[in-house]
Amino acid sequence: MELLKKHRSVRSYKSESISDDLINLILECGIRGSNTGNMQLYSVIVSKDFDNRKALLPLHFNQKMVTDAPVLLTICIDINRFNKWCEISNTSTDMFNLIWLLNSTIDCSILAQNISIAAEEYGLGICYLGTTLYNALEISEFLDLPDGVVPITAITMGYPEVYPELVDRLPLEAVVHYEKYIHKNNDEISEIYFEKEKREDSRKFVSENGMKNLAEVYTKIRYNSNDNLKFSTKLIDMLKNQGFKFY
Amino acid sequence: MELLKKHRSVRSYKSESISDDLINLILECGIRGSNTGNMQLYSVIVSKDFDNRKALLPLHFNQKMVTDAPVLLTICIDINRFNKWCEISNTSTDMFNLIWLLNSTIDCSILAQNISIAAEEYGLGICYLGTTLYNALEISEFLDLPDGVVPITAITMGYPEVYPELVDRLPLEAVVHYEKYIHKNNDEISEIYFEKEKREDSRKFVSENGMKNLAEVYTKIRYNSNDNLKFSTKLIDMLKNQGFKFY
Repeated sequence: MELLKKHRSVRSYKSESISDDLINLILECGIRGSNTGNMQLYSVIVSKDFDNRKALLPLHFNQKMVTDAPVLLTICIDINRFNKWCEISNTSTDMFNLIWLLNSTIDCSILAQNISIAAEEYGLGICYLGTTLYNALEISEFLDLPDGVVPITAITMGYPEVYPELVDRLPLEAVVHYEKYIHKNNDEISEIYFEKEKREDSRKFVSENGMKNLAEVYTKIRYNSNDNLKFSTKLIDMLKNQGFKFY
Repeated sequence: MELLKKHRSVRSYKSESISDDLINLILECGIRGSNTGNMQLYSVIVSKDFDNRKALLPLHFNQKMVTDAPVLLTICIDINRFNKWCEISNTSTDMFNLIWLLNSTIDCSILAQNISIAAEEYGLGICYLGTTLYNALEISEFLDLPDGVVPITAITMGYPEVYPELVDRLPLEAVVHYEKYIHKNNDEISEIYFEKEKREDSRKFVSENGMKNLAEVYTKIRYNSNDNLKFSTKLIDMLKNQGFKFY
């Protein structure tokens, strides 16, 4: 419980490696998580080799944790293995659609979070890499993934060099609703984001980027519409080429 | 660590309620999990009221945990709150696309898994409801969700009446690959599923359903192509009606 409440993403690692036994223990905790129908529609690619992580570095927008941390885990949906088993068993079911993309993404994320918590319990630090979906195509090519295996997220893992400060969160009442969704008016929305906006790090973030407010940093710098649509189209094209249908 | 390894989905609950303080503690652990850009693109709807859970029961294919467990949590992506904040701040970014559907689904699942682990640490049991995506439309209507808020998964939570046996998993080597994806031939795939297929519960599952093998149970009974495509189309139509683009 205290472990969950203390979680921080670790972006600075010692060079110390992680033993294979410990990696296996952590991965075992990963696969014990709930998953749809116990089909385990996922695969994990473990990158320990420095040259491989160096090759993946630009695909993760040069976030230095990829090479600084001794282990990079790429968590992929995997409907290929299940489909092959069905084929051998002279049967099939169509999973190349949105429902199974989402089902298996949920399963991947539960696996990833179990891995993260187990790692932290052993004194390791982790950081999720959201860049995985942006360059899923290039990452797939490098990792030699077949159709039906798609990188969803990645985790860097290693002994922390620096533990950053705990990051802020919106007040719990902002994200929790009892019985029915509570529709908030403008004043109530402003209230939710008030503490976040007045933080010193937020204000520094705004001024350093020459923006008017924090929302502009998110929408004009970090996640602007052009990038969102570019990466989304790229991902959809990749998935369609593998046979995924979005209709 | 032991907690993670002992996880079982609990489908039989005592009538004992969960205190509001404990629910809040558990939800606090939920929101401490990693999330994309710390935007917290999620909302949790807590259903404690029996009549509300009874109304949701058929939408979850009458899985009795929905009414037997004292608490049902519906975990939703929520880009509505963030968009409103942007609007107030005179800016915007387009998140009605696949990248953000997946980013926020990952964040929802990490939140859900933190909630699950915290609950188990307090002696509660949980069960994920995969039915959530199948009836996302009807669940949204009942919970009064606005556009941009989509139910992704749900969790029943309560004090366990019966702790089921630990469920089997594929051997770790089946889902873990080092450095590059390991492409398996038919013999190797059969080997992976060998232990699962020879289990007594698997064979019972096959014979009770009058099927030839375990893969047929999955593909003809539990998750057949017709249902997969029907639910996928239904979900996509719902999302498109909200403005999501899949191109």
